[in-house]
Amino acid sequence: MAYEFTQQGKDLLEQVKAYMDEFIYPKVDEYHAEAERLGHSGFPAILDDMKKAARERGLWNLFIPHLNPGAPGTKLSNVDYAPISEELGKVGFASQALNCAAPDTGNMEILNMYGSDRVKKDWLDPLLEGEIRSAFSMTEPAVASSDATNIGLRIERDGDEYVLNGTKWFSSGAMRENCRVLVVMGKTDPSASRHLQQSMIVVPKDTPGISIGRQPHVFGFDHGGGHPEIHYENVRVPAENLLGEPGSGFAISQARLGPGRIHHCMRSIGVAERALELMVKRSLERETFGTSVAQKGIIQDWIAEARINIDMHREYVLRTAHLMDTVGNKSAAAEISGIKVAVPRMALKIIDDAIQVFGAAGVTQFAPLAEMYASMRTLRIADGPDEVHKMTIARREILKYDGTFRINPTVGSRKKESGDEVPVMRP
Amino acid sequence: MAYEFTQQGKDLLEQVKAYMDEFIYPKVDEYHAEAERLGHSGFPAILDDMKKAARERGLWNLFIPHLNPGAPGTKLSNVDYAPISEELGKVGFASQALNCAAPDTGNMEILNMYGSDRVKKDWLDPLLEGEIRSAFSMTEPAVASSDATNIGLRIERDGDEYVLNGTKWFSSGAMRENCRVLVVMGKTDPSASRHLQQSMIVVPKDTPGISIGRQPHVFGFDHGGGHPEIHYENVRVPAENLLGEPGSGFAISQARLGPGRIHHCMRSIGVAERALELMVKRSLERETFGTSVAQKGIIQDWIAEARINIDMHREYVLRTAHLMDTVGNKSAAAEISGIKVAVPRMALKIIDDAIQVFGAAGVTQFAPLAEMYASMRTLRIADGPDEVHKMTIARREILKYDGTFRINPTVGSRKKESGDEVPVMRP
Amino acid sequence: MAYEFTQQGKDLLEQVKAYMDEFIYPKVDEYHAEAERLGHSGFPAILDDMKKAARERGLWNLFIPHLNPGAPGTKLSNVDYAPISEELGKVGFASQALNCAAPDTGNMEILNMYGSDRVKKDWLDPLLEGEIRSAFSMTEPAVASSDATNIGLRIERDGDEYVLNGTKWFSSGAMRENCRVLVVMGKTDPSASRHLQQSMIVVPKDTPGISIGRQPHVFGFDHGGGHPEIHYENVRVPAENLLGEPGSGFAISQARLGPGRIHHCMRSIGVAERALELMVKRSLERETFGTSVAQKGIIQDWIAEARINIDMHREYVLRTAHLMDTVGNKSAAAEISGIKVAVPRMALKIIDDAIQVFGAAGVTQFAPLAEMYASMRTLRIADGPDEVHKMTIARREILKYDGTFRINPTVGSRKKESGDEVPVMRP
Amino acid sequence: MAYEFTQQGKDLLEQVKAYMDEFIYPKVDEYHAEAERLGHSGFPAILDDMKKAARERGLWNLFIPHLNPGAPGTKLSNVDYAPISEELGKVGFASQALNCAAPDTGNMEILNMYGSDRVKKDWLDPLLEGEIRSAFSMTEPAVASSDATNIGLRIERDGDEYVLNGTKWFSSGAMRENCRVLVVMGKTDPSASRHLQQSMIVVPKDTPGISIGRQPHVFGFDHGGGHPEIHYENVRVPAENLLGEPGSGFAISQARLGPGRIHHCMRSIGVAERALELMVKRSLERETFGTSVAQKGIIQDWIAEARINIDMHREYVLRTAHLMDTVGNKSAAAEISGIKVAVPRMALKIIDDAIQVFGAAGVTQFAPLAEMYASMRTLRIADGPDEVHKMTIARREILKYDGTFRINPTVGSRKKESGDEVPVMRP
Repeated sequence: MAYEFTQQGKDLLEQVKAYMDEFIYPKVDEYHAEAERLGHSGFPAILDDMKKAARERGLWNLFIPHLNPGAPGTKLSNVDYAPISEELGKVGFASQALNCAAPDTGNMEILNMYGSDRVKKDWLDPLLEGEIRSAFSMTEPAVASSDATNIGLRIERDGDEYVLNGTKWFSSGAMRENCRVLVVMGKTDPSASRHLQQSMIVVPKDTPGISIGRQPHVFGFDHGGGHPEIHYENVRVPAENLLGEPGSGFAISQARLGPGRIHHCMRSIGVAERALELMVKRSLERETFGTSVAQKGIIQDWIAEARINIDMHREYVLRTAHLMDTVGNKSAAAEISGIKVAVPRMALKIIDDAIQVFGAAGVTQFAPLAEMYASMRTLRIADGPDEVHKMTIARREILKYDGTFRINPTVGSRKKESGDEVPVMRP
Repeated sequence: MAYEFTQQGKDLLEQVKAYMDEFIYPKVDEYHAEAERLGHSGFPAILDDMKKAARERGLWNLFIPHLNPGAPGTKLSNVDYAPISEELGKVGFASQALNCAAPDTGNMEILNMYGSDRVKKDWLDPLLEGEIRSAFSMTEPAVASSDATNIGLRIERDGDEYVLNGTKWFSSGAMRENCRVLVVMGKTDPSASRHLQQSMIVVPKDTPGISIGRQPHVFGFDHGGGHPEIHYENVRVPAENLLGEPGSGFAISQARLGPGRIHHCMRSIGVAERALELMVKRSLERETFGTSVAQKGIIQDWIAEARINIDMHREYVLRTAHLMDTVGNKSAAAEISGIKVAVPRMALKIIDDAIQVFGAAGVTQFAPLAEMYASMRTLRIADGPDEVHKMTIARREILKYDGTFRINPTVGSRKKESGDEVPVMRP
Repeated sequence: MAYEFTQQGKDLLEQVKAYMDEFIYPKVDEYHAEAERLGHSGFPAILDDMKKAARERGLWNLFIPHLNPGAPGTKLSNVDYAPISEELGKVGFASQALNCAAPDTGNMEILNMYGSDRVKKDWLDPLLEGEIRSAFSMTEPAVASSDATNIGLRIERDGDEYVLNGTKWFSSGAMRENCRVLVVMGKTDPSASRHLQQSMIVVPKDTPGISIGRQPHVFGFDHGGGHPEIHYENVRVPAENLLGEPGSGFAISQARLGPGRIHHCMRSIGVAERALELMVKRSLERETFGTSVAQKGIIQDWIAEARINIDMHREYVLRTAHLMDTVGNKSAAAEISGIKVAVPRMALKIIDDAIQVFGAAGVTQFAPLAEMYASMRTLRIADGPDEVHKMTIARREILKYDGTFRINPTVGSRKKESGDEVPVMRP
Repeated sequence: MAYEFTQQGKDLLEQVKAYMDEFIYPKVDEYHAEAERLGHSGFPAILDDMKKAARERGLWNLFIPHLNPGAPGTKLSNVDYAPISEELGKVGFASQALNCAAPDTGNMEILNMYGSDRVKKDWLDPLLEGEIRSAFSMTEPAVASSDATNIGLRIERDGDEYVLNGTKWFSSGAMRENCRVLVVMGKTDPSASRHLQQSMIVVPKDTPGISIGRQPHVFGFDHGGGHPEIHYENVRVPAENLLGEPGSGFAISQARLGPGRIHHCMRSIGVAERALELMVKRSLERETFGTSVAQKGIIQDWIAEARINIDMHREYVLRTAHLMDTVGNKSAAAEISGIKVAVPRMALKIIDDAIQVFGAAGVTQFAPLAEMYASMRTLRIADGPDEVHKMTIARREILKYDGTFRINPTVGSRKKESGDEVPVMRP
């Protein structure tokens, strides 16, 4: 796959690195101590300084692809954004400082593409300014949400309003004080065909009828705004809050998830690089049985495998970014699924090896590895579990040789449509 | 390997299963809720009822091997104890109810074998009664403790006392209110040969000079008495608190760790069984794309692999138990290392697959899987990292063909002794 | 699983080892040179001496289980036979010398159990004497034979005879001059229910209508009697040559394959031990970059993993043998499937590592490793591919929690019977 | 990594594809039947027609990099050559038809760079014309040749000649009738420093003193010109046959092996694509238990993983090609090592899965898979075993954090030089 970094991209990458050195790395410990103290709903004040500095340097909303001509912010191709996002990935909170953090990035994109003027003014503008944050309310605790037909939350029209009833969880970030708005997926027409049942709608977090339920931890961690369960009980919002047409929810989710997935992968490359760096440094510091750990052949093997795999997966991500830039997200769907499967497990292996090199410290909060592991591990489930993505890739591959191939053709009792068979989801 | 469960063993296993059904399983949620509320230092009161019930049924101190004729408690061979320990492993706190929990089991064994009469009366007796708990203070934050020569804590003779100075961490369980005593590893003679430098000593937790430092979490979890950092600053204890002879600490640690490791493995088989059960049940409950998850070929593959691997690893543990029963812990050292490496990673794979089947719930506290994962993951580091154990196994294998083989013979600058080259440790 | 080697078993094991040292190991090179010269149909004459010596020592037909009281030969339990078979597995041709080689062992068992008197006299007796050899004709080139309903060869009654029409291949050993008889699987009643369509029949190799087709190599190797394609065209044999009742072929194949699979696994443990021995010795002989290869950490890791895995898999095989001895082959079906999947892949990994340690020599005929690899690789396909066995294991596991579970219940168009759903086969 | 296929490269790729469709694919069976008949020394006559057709179309010597301005032939960058080489890799003998086959490509490169005028006239010109073939004589049977200091063959000056004494093997292709010349690595000065002891020299195959020894097979296969053992006994060649300066052999081997390795990797991507295609097609043709094999979830998983891994590894190879094009082979050494390790094992996994899908046919000569496996397996040993390459990668990675790091610093007894520590080799 032929691609080129633009001069603008290269320059911005250098600026981002310089910014990280000046504003992020020196504050890592302070940030984490503050975050620990505040819990999942808090907002470390030093982040405001970081945001201000980033914005002044024009390092803001870098994620917005050049393919959306009407959108505000710095226009970077996916290829140009990849190494920048990798840098940001090395420190968990850095993306926030540049207003490039999930789930806001994906939400901003779909508000920009599908929101009414009112929705844009009320929610997109302050998100683009970094004044508020948002959450994405898709996954449900009661069902396997990777199959969109399982979704239970109802969105029903009542006059000029829609009424929501149902329960979500893993609406990540919703516990943040400054999270003000939720993008919610639900069914407007359960009787429609498979992928026309769902719609997406914008719901202010303070709307009556919204209540917070359980607070899921992730491997014991509870940072970054939480992943709360949210009950929607007769929640009413204006009809213009619906994104796009009724029944377009599934299509929008697919549009949203492509960039979301590659952003995760770009950052995950950075996570893996960070883990490798930590592993090597630690191996040089520790002595056992007469030599540094770095002298042990098995550790050298891990280090070499890490370098090989990081470099290889980075290229795969860049190829996918280039495809998204050139032939579009939809045509790049198989590649997006591919990186989604491959990159987190690569990072997990390296983090796991690094933990082993660290010894006991590796599993504790005194090294970032355990939290990195927990975070990467969720990516194998989020946005569609790996297995569903692999099913779609297999289907495409088999279709090359049998144009009539359908997975599990014997599952004949339910209605069949011509659309994509194996959608996947979760923010 | 030929072995036989005794009738006593079989009977006790049935009794333990009945006990679990009556006293443990119905209380799992209550226990965890209470433990969550109390934090790492608390002691859920319902555990007392469980302990009382266990004791009344004679299900108490089952771990004490029949090879220690002088020790109180039920005498079971390692082979007979294995399936019982597996049952206990299915619920994290069950071992405590039967007074079979680490690190007390190992500590009781060495107090029984090496403690002075005074030490036995003051500390062993209440431990055997389940009145107090203990911790094992071996790992140090500043060095790779798998090499015993790295140990920094000093134990110096001063008249009728020993004086301790140094810092430990991962003295697991030491935060419990009812933890009253610490078994501490340190150096009495740093100038002695490699494996005669260390001694072990019994230290009451309320001795002046002891202070608690950092509180390491494990993957965000902070249960079960914590894993605190403990500073020992001019801590004075009577000379008779030293276990065995000065300089015997390394040998005692090896004696202690063999049973400790196999107990972990026995329980880990139970953990894996539990994870498999959860995986299958969940796969039957969830529907995606027209069938239950249990119908997916890839999930069936995971289930089959889990069954194969559990059954295989259980046999390997039993073989090792039988060796310990018949030829002794020292002769079974390679097998103990082998199960120590093999069993936790087997369990981790199954837990990881189960998490994937659970979806988002799998990483949260609403399924036991993430905590099981964290717990199993530490076993790859604790009691010597896997890589050190594999080094010892490789050495023994190579020695069959080259009786003069020494690992890394070129590491010539330090003194060499004839003893075991690659000790490993941590409670 | 509790089991015990009998004194008889232990004695025979020692005798087999002594026999191997005296008669087999010194002749390995000579045998292979002769086999190379003769091609797949030849019979190295020195094998006759080996057979004579084995028979004189009573090391003959050791495979015949004690559960068949009427059968001639040494009666050993599966548990007792396991370590003997492991020893034989270390040298590819050793099993032949003791008349314990596949496919004769399986064929002798079913001839003994299901053959008419005439069949026993004509074919079983000379097989038991080691005077002739046999082949098993089940796999067909045109279909996936792991599903018995796919079998195409027809066996039709015509008066006092049966007439066979169809094509088989991988009738391993059939090219040997002294192979005189074929046990053939075919369909006597394609309209019967799924597992009652098949029958097995005994066919003298020189019956008119039999012709040899293609000669499949295995990874380029063409030893041990070949794996020829055999065309059966109006091949007529007496009706009494049918084994058991018409329609019992599937049931007999299942009876035959259990012992066949575990014998393969027992030998495969020996293969793995041999590969490990070769790996360690080679690693001691080779020097690179200043040390022996045995000093490299990564090689030590392979050696340790090999030791762990061999010991673990051996126990799993013994457990399965014990189950077959005590509860019967049918009840041990899941375990037989389990070892069938686990053991060859374990051996393959060790052989592959050994090849790597050998360097270029490892892939050549000047080390036994490449041929060992080819042989082990076929075991993942033979007797039912691993994937089919894992499907049966998964089904059994899931049935524990859902007694109505059927794999792929939606495959509703074909008739369903209550019998075993997932048979597997090939000699 | 930014790169671009040139228009010339794209055009040639299309021409190569068209050429393959017209001249190669229709002749695959015929070629193999002829090759089988002729044995390793033969030369299927139909290859001449293919060569003629390729040459007429300008599809000739495409491998010669544009960086060698003086060399004849089509100048393609490594990036442009990669997809062409991938296409050629899909059929084992296709590279020969375009005069792009190993070991000639590497030999031509070094003859071009280091050969005397005479050597160029006598040997390079006919090689470039495709009139003769060549072999590379580096690996020795008695030592681990991955450490160049182990090389035993002596090259001694005697007047105007050099005299060679020693034994090589795996001089692949040397049995071909039309192989006329050998490039031999040996030691001209064993007392020189580590990497200045070796030289390379051009030896006509018919020089007196050369004799053929053993004929190693590769996993039973003996195609493509063999891998013979060659004894050099007082073999005399003119002094001008030495390539470059005396003592430059190691440096030349490194120069030669970089392109050689990436060419292998490019072709291996094609091999993997071919295996995937075969796997999918076969899975569509076979039915078991009521559905095609393509419907089985586990097979779909293999297919998806294959697609992911092929695409990912291809990008990694292209990145490496681009580095070689832009910063040079030496600076791309770590990446060359990386692809050398990663690509063959990726291909091996896919081939192995495809074999499993094929069932018995997969291991035979009636599918190309077993031979593909054997061929790929040797690549993990050839040109330096994977483990040596990973050692070099690890060292480079560790050097980023500790500029003084040397692997195994305790191996102090032998002389140390500043040069590259971990060379690797084999034709």
